[in-house]
Amino acid sequence: MSVRKPYRLVSRDFHPEDSVIPVGHVAFGGNKVVVISGPCAVESREQVLTSGEFMARVGVPVLRGGAYKPRTSPYSFQGMGVDGLKLLAEARDRFGVMVVTEAVDRESLDHVVEWADMVQIGARNMQNYELLKAVGQVKKPVLLKRGFAATIDEWLMAAEYVAANGNPNIILCERGIRTYETKTRNTLDISAIPVVKQLSHLPVVIDPSHAAGTWQWVAPLARAGIAAGADGLIIETHPNPAEALSDGPQSLNFRHLEELMGDVARVARAVGRDV
Amino acid sequence: MSVRKPYRLVSRDFHPEDSVIPVGHVAFGGNKVVVISGPCAVESREQVLTSGEFMARVGVPVLRGGAYKPRTSPYSFQGMGVDGLKLLAEARDRFGVMVVTEAVDRESLDHVVEWADMVQIGARNMQNYELLKAVGQVKKPVLLKRGFAATIDEWLMAAEYVAANGNPNIILCERGIRTYETKTRNTLDISAIPVVKQLSHLPVVIDPSHAAGTWQWVAPLARAGIAAGADGLIIETHPNPAEALSDGPQSLNFRHLEELMGDVARVARAVGRDV
Amino acid sequence: MSVRKPYRLVSRDFHPEDSVIPVGHVAFGGNKVVVISGPCAVESREQVLTSGEFMARVGVPVLRGGAYKPRTSPYSFQGMGVDGLKLLAEARDRFGVMVVTEAVDRESLDHVVEWADMVQIGARNMQNYELLKAVGQVKKPVLLKRGFAATIDEWLMAAEYVAANGNPNIILCERGIRTYETKTRNTLDISAIPVVKQLSHLPVVIDPSHAAGTWQWVAPLARAGIAAGADGLIIETHPNPAEALSDGPQSLNFRHLEELMGDVARVARAVGRDV
Amino acid sequence: MSVRKPYRLVSRDFHPEDSVIPVGHVAFGGNKVVVISGPCAVESREQVLTSGEFMARVGVPVLRGGAYKPRTSPYSFQGMGVDGLKLLAEARDRFGVMVVTEAVDRESLDHVVEWADMVQIGARNMQNYELLKAVGQVKKPVLLKRGFAATIDEWLMAAEYVAANGNPNIILCERGIRTYETKTRNTLDISAIPVVKQLSHLPVVIDPSHAAGTWQWVAPLARAGIAAGADGLIIETHPNPAEALSDGPQSLNFRHLEELMGDVARVARAVGRDV
Repeated sequence: MSVRKPYRLVSRDFHPEDSVIPVGHVAFGGNKVVVISGPCAVESREQVLTSGEFMARVGVPVLRGGAYKPRTSPYSFQGMGVDGLKLLAEARDRFGVMVVTEAVDRESLDHVVEWADMVQIGARNMQNYELLKAVGQVKKPVLLKRGFAATIDEWLMAAEYVAANGNPNIILCERGIRTYETKTRNTLDISAIPVVKQLSHLPVVIDPSHAAGTWQWVAPLARAGIAAGADGLIIETHPNPAEALSDGPQSLNFRHLEELMGDVARVARAVGRDV
Repeated sequence: MSVRKPYRLVSRDFHPEDSVIPVGHVAFGGNKVVVISGPCAVESREQVLTSGEFMARVGVPVLRGGAYKPRTSPYSFQGMGVDGLKLLAEARDRFGVMVVTEAVDRESLDHVVEWADMVQIGARNMQNYELLKAVGQVKKPVLLKRGFAATIDEWLMAAEYVAANGNPNIILCERGIRTYETKTRNTLDISAIPVVKQLSHLPVVIDPSHAAGTWQWVAPLARAGIAAGADGLIIETHPNPAEALSDGPQSLNFRHLEELMGDVARVARAVGRDV
Repeated sequence: MSVRKPYRLVSRDFHPEDSVIPVGHVAFGGNKVVVISGPCAVESREQVLTSGEFMARVGVPVLRGGAYKPRTSPYSFQGMGVDGLKLLAEARDRFGVMVVTEAVDRESLDHVVEWADMVQIGARNMQNYELLKAVGQVKKPVLLKRGFAATIDEWLMAAEYVAANGNPNIILCERGIRTYETKTRNTLDISAIPVVKQLSHLPVVIDPSHAAGTWQWVAPLARAGIAAGADGLIIETHPNPAEALSDGPQSLNFRHLEELMGDVARVARAVGRDV
Repeated sequence: MSVRKPYRLVSRDFHPEDSVIPVGHVAFGGNKVVVISGPCAVESREQVLTSGEFMARVGVPVLRGGAYKPRTSPYSFQGMGVDGLKLLAEARDRFGVMVVTEAVDRESLDHVVEWADMVQIGARNMQNYELLKAVGQVKKPVLLKRGFAATIDEWLMAAEYVAANGNPNIILCERGIRTYETKTRNTLDISAIPVVKQLSHLPVVIDPSHAAGTWQWVAPLARAGIAAGADGLIIETHPNPAEALSDGPQSLNFRHLEELMGDVARVARAVGRDV
């Protein structure tokens, strides 16, 4: 697990300026804070279209939703696959929101690249180096989540795998690390934002939903992330959290997301940015 | 280590309103965010008076400084003791700042109560129950730091020890927890702010200096803390960090503290508070 | 990350007797403690054949060696691939040792199944569910390493993925977990042995080499594992540790392995087992 | 928390030979493995005398029992104090077992020194430096437990505090560290045994009871500790665990302790030692 050679391409030494990564008409890493939101899992056409429409209406430019779900149990819902990707693409076409979704192997990666605007690599695959090499060879930007027990160095080395294989369009995502504290699902490592910003030129977004594990704590963590210098947020929402097939307890409903957007805008302006 | 009986007196069930804890003319837990700052250790009369004067000038109402230092090594500087307390009191008398300093046993507690306005219980003594009982019997407010590997439940149980022994004037301080990540000295558990605010009526401040371990990361963590709902900050500063006897690398100099005060004010207003 | 449905097939409730898993002429989970040893990475024909010959001579029935190496850095040696697998097979054919080696994706899995006797799933792929599903569909036994930050429940759920996809021949391997302590590379969770033995019928081996990170501490950890009830050990050795391309500092040389075999036999007999 | 100056007096550089620490007629650190056992808390005369008699009968030379209990909750049983110490002393006088019990502050330390043969410093007080200084000034040997989140360096620095204040008779006790795994109360850091043995000349014992938190796992951890090179064990037992006022679930009954003594003797002989 030791780091034999340091990261190069993702290092700020190599590229002193902040990188700005375009995802369609959206830019990560510029002055604007970018919010990504949507359901944990794509569950139905109605759910996705309702979500996409709402995101467009409240100024959330990127819709998230999982079609391939890496679940702890083999008996849990594993996602809708390509059918889910097509629903996300339909939401993009109708409402103008960009779409990000997770790939879990080469096969799903091919489909994600075909239908989505950004490929997510999940926390549990952050050291799946074969997948990192594969995503390094595609033409779509990558949202690279930090493994839940990865050091910052290992996370940046994972990004280096992607970059070294040809894909420089990487957005890092801090989503909480595993600690002894059990009140929250994970412990949001808020310090990772300034640390990574110092070490790397890549944009960093935070995922307060997976860190908190409880929707009531998502808004304060989201505000904290922006105040600490994050370039964006990824927030789980659901039209009806009580009926979500996964991650219901940590999902905001639409009203709470709308309130959060106001909060985020105010904090963003307080630190010299915009939404 | 299991919690056999839950906390009562410090629970929000027992006292649904936020507690506002007065420290002289300063109030913790109200609408105003309160900043505490000063050196890690009291080192000299000049250092303390210079610090006190600066704090008063930039609107920091509480001066910190350690006269009894719990050091990892028996060969490190252990603090100036009562002489240090007298210097802090002189700074208070001349500049009108309140004074907080750590007590490490019954004897030092007696002196701290005599000379200071608030007693700090350090992270390494958070489960020193005899000290908690003793501080429960004094008439001064207590700044109770979270142990660096304490759960939130254990921290609130430590507060319960103080309250159950007669002292309800407790301010909680999150200062980073021990995790596997080594870039920062500890990992600031930013989630602890909303979690504790839900469980307890006590004010919560954060200590970004001990969490970060590096001064460059103090300001983003301080902003994050306020954005997440903290009632205050405790920040290590030194007139000349390069010459500090302890914690120099994580200490701000005066110019950086002044800049931070502006940042904090902007974020505080963005979340409906003031400094 | 919560476990929605418990493991079934790997649970002791489902199969109250200890499972004995055959790997060629070797059996894991019976009265005999089984030692697996060999180099971290397959580096050359001479290295592999020398290792295989030595293992046969000192009574180590299974040879390990990585042909596909998941490395933290994209610039590190990534393994010899199929050429390495052929060398392992040659060692088996000449010296009668069984061969275990890691697969990192579907493609390498096909090759490993063709050439080796047991498939290793590494710690960093323990939650690579697509790989777990794939290995569930092959006819070779699986050595499933615990992720370095996986809970025991998550580890058993990973085994459940393999079993639920059709492959019941699973051997669990504890290899150290990530904690705040940095003297060792990871912290060997010795308690995992009795805990897993109570929850599951599967054999458990321990990997003291990756846990320790330093060869001097491998022997005491190996003895501890057997004393705690482990069914076997996996130990990194190298004909010349100082020249190893990876994991040299934690590799035993042949003389130390031979001494360790004597230690292990004595402790095994003390707990009513044999080697 | 950083270690500014390394330990000296407790370092193996300073004293290359293993230290043998006498506790009355018992020696820690020699060829014999020493078992300490008894109840978590002293509860009654009958409980203590029954325990002492049993220990003498099965060859356990040191009786443990807490008279001052640092409890997480202020509402839990806090121990019998001096009355409890007198019961321990009575057991010593009648059955010839040495007595170890915890001190929690200067006042209790005075009493413990008067009545007991060895002073225990508990995990939660490992960085209570005022207590360490005080115990450095007494004439009784010290059993110094590792803090549940202390690094090995911090633990040895705590021992250095005791030694630097004049008391070289220190026995270290590993009792499990706090990790993310929740199946066990703490994670026994079995590696700490060889690591500390390399760094220091002091004897090391392990406490499998507090690490496991469940009596069924105590025996395998105890065997593992001896196999890894520990100089002794401290095991919680109770005449009737179901009625224990504290730590019942992790306490062995007398029959299980007797079986364990046989196990320990066999493993000790396998590693060239005796009980």
